[in-house]
Amino acid sequence: MKLATLRASRPDGQLVVVSSDLTRFVSAGRIAPTLQAALDDWDRLKPALAELSKDLDKGAIAGQTFEPSAALAPLPRAFQWIDGSGYMSHLERVRSLKGSKDAELQSIRPLLYQGGSDSLSAASDPILIPDEDLALDFEVEVAIIIGHVPMRPSRAQAAAAIRLVTICNDVSLRRLVADDLQNGFGFFHSKPSTAFAPVVVTPDSLGEHWRDNRLHLPVRVEVNGTLYGRPNAGVDVHFDFIDLIVEAARTRQLGAGTIIGSGTIANHHDETLPIREDGIGFACIAEARTAEKVKFGKARTPFLKPGDRLRMAALAGGRSVFGDIQQTVVALASRT
Amino acid sequence: MKLATLRASRPDGQLVVVSSDLTRFVSAGRIAPTLQAALDDWDRLKPALAELSKDLDKGAIAGQTFEPSAALAPLPRAFQWIDGSGYMSHLERVRSLKGSKDAELQSIRPLLYQGGSDSLSAASDPILIPDEDLALDFEVEVAIIIGHVPMRPSRAQAAAAIRLVTICNDVSLRRLVADDLQNGFGFFHSKPSTAFAPVVVTPDSLGEHWRDNRLHLPVRVEVNGTLYGRPNAGVDVHFDFIDLIVEAARTRQLGAGTIIGSGTIANHHDETLPIREDGIGFACIAEARTAEKVKFGKARTPFLKPGDRLRMAALAGGRSVFGDIQQTVVALASRT
Repeated sequence: MKLATLRASRPDGQLVVVSSDLTRFVSAGRIAPTLQAALDDWDRLKPALAELSKDLDKGAIAGQTFEPSAALAPLPRAFQWIDGSGYMSHLERVRSLKGSKDAELQSIRPLLYQGGSDSLSAASDPILIPDEDLALDFEVEVAIIIGHVPMRPSRAQAAAAIRLVTICNDVSLRRLVADDLQNGFGFFHSKPSTAFAPVVVTPDSLGEHWRDNRLHLPVRVEVNGTLYGRPNAGVDVHFDFIDLIVEAARTRQLGAGTIIGSGTIANHHDETLPIREDGIGFACIAEARTAEKVKFGKARTPFLKPGDRLRMAALAGGRSVFGDIQQTVVALASRT
Repeated sequence: MKLATLRASRPDGQLVVVSSDLTRFVSAGRIAPTLQAALDDWDRLKPALAELSKDLDKGAIAGQTFEPSAALAPLPRAFQWIDGSGYMSHLERVRSLKGSKDAELQSIRPLLYQGGSDSLSAASDPILIPDEDLALDFEVEVAIIIGHVPMRPSRAQAAAAIRLVTICNDVSLRRLVADDLQNGFGFFHSKPSTAFAPVVVTPDSLGEHWRDNRLHLPVRVEVNGTLYGRPNAGVDVHFDFIDLIVEAARTRQLGAGTIIGSGTIANHHDETLPIREDGIGFACIAEARTAEKVKFGKARTPFLKPGDRLRMAALAGGRSVFGDIQQTVVALASRT
C-alpha cells in the first residue's frame, strides 16, 4: 500500500491512496482525513485503506492522475522527527572519529537528535536559506513512520511499530553544525526543514526490498543533473531501525506518527567525485569533501548555492519507489 | 481569556474556555475542536472564544465545574517544543560557566534545544522514570505558545506572534545530561515528557503581570510540602521571549502551535536550602545542590525518588494563575 498527502485547505492536507506504479490516486477521506488520523487508529483503519489500494491497483477504481508536485510531505507537520546515525561510514567521514572515545561509544549505541517537525518540506519545495555562506548540504536518508511505542520496548514491540517507509533529505547548514555541536544543545540552527519523498509505503508492499528492519535499495542522488552517488541503503548498516527505535525509547514513550531517520546513507569505499562508471559515491557533499581532502589535500566539490537543483530517488528495477525528491536552492529575500 | 484541554476520546482532547477564577468551564467545541485547531486559525476564531470567555465570566453562561485533574496538557502533543535559556543564573549555577568562552557566547545569544513534543504531560500526570538512579530533577519555566513566525522575523513580528502563556515542568534526568551534552546531539535522553499547567492565558488577560515580553509573577515550588523556592519570573531575565523567538527563527520558520520555554526561572542570590522566611530559593534541585557544594563542600538536597510529590504554581495575589502542576514520581514497572 502506498499513501500520500495532497495539498488541501487545511495545514495537514488530504490523505490519498496512490497506485503501486505512482500514476493514479484516490482520496482516502472517507476512511481518515489525514495521515496522522490514520496513524492514530491504524489497526482499525488499515484494512479499509488496503482494500482501497487493491481496488485502485486492479482498476476497479479509476482514480485520478497522481501529480507528485501536488503532494505535501506525507506528514506536513509531525509530532516528532528523530534522526539517527545508522551508517558509521558517514560519521567516520564527516567527523574523523576513528580511534576516539566517541567513536567507540557511538559504535555501541546510535546517536539520535530531536529534529524540528513543525514544518516538513514537500519533495518539490525549494530549500530556502537565509544566507548564501552557510555551506548548504543535503543528506539522503531512509525514514520510517511508527505507531505508539512504550518506554523501554522489546525488540519485537519496536519491530511491530513500523508502519511506513520512505526517503528524506535532511537539509544541513554545515557552517552552523560546529557551533551547534560545541554548545551541546543539538542541531538547532544547522538543520532547517527536512524534505520527504511524496509517497510512503507499508513494509509488506516493499517485498524483498524490506528485510532485517532495513531498506535494501540503492538511492540515486544527482546535483544539477550530475550523479553524485548511488549507495545501497541495505549495505553497511551498523544500526537498523529496531536499534534506533529501542534507543529512542530508553527514557520515554514514542507517540504514533513519530518519524525516525536512518542517518545519511553511506557505504564503505575510498572513492572521490566525479563518480566512476561502477562507483558508489555519496549521499551528502560533506563526505565527498572529506575524501577529497584525504586524496588531494583539499576539498573540491562545492557546497550548494542558490539555483542548484537536487534529485533523489530510491530505485527498484530502475523505477522510483517513493517518488523523487526534487528541490531547488533559493535564497531568502532580504527584509530591507 | 483562559483556555484548557480536557480529556476526550481523541488524542488531542477537547478545547474549553475556563473562567478567570478557574472554577468553571464551557466547551469551545462549536468554535474549534482542539487548541491546535484554534491556533491554526487564531485571528478568525479568537473573537468568538473571547466572547464565550466574557459570557462565562459574567455568568451569562453557567458552565460546568472545572476540575484541573480532568485537563490534559493544553497541547497534549505539539508540533514543536523549543526550550530556551533566558535566566543566566541557572546556567551559571548548573554549569559553572563563569569566565569560560561558552559563558561569553551564551550571554550574547540564548541557547535553545529542540524538545520532544509527541507526548506532553498533564499537570496531574505522574513522572514515570525507567530507573531510580538517574538523578531526577524538575525545572519550573514560563512557556508561551505562538502563532506562525517567518524565518528571520523582526522583533515586532516576534512580539505579535505570542498567543498564550503558562508554566511548565521541564523534567530532567541529570545523570544523563552530561552524556547528552558530550555527544553534542542535544538533550535526547535526559529530558523526558515535559508537564504543563492545566490552563493557558492570553497575554492581555494577564494585565500588569505581562509586560516587556515576560511574566512578572513569582513561581512557588514545593517538594513533599516543603517550600524550595519562589523566584520571580520577571526578575533577572537575560533573554526575554522576543529574544528567544528571534533566535529560534534564525534559519527556519516556526509553525503555529510552537511552544517556547523560558529556561529554568532563577534569580540572583547566594542562598541555600532550607529556604529562609524572606528567601527566594530555587526552581530546580541542581542549582540548590551547586549552592550547597560551594557553601558546605558537598550537596545535601537529594534528587527526586519514587513517591516524591511536586507542586508548582505562578501566584498573583496568592491565587494560582494557570492552575497548579502537581506530579508524583513513579518508577516504571520492570518488563520481566
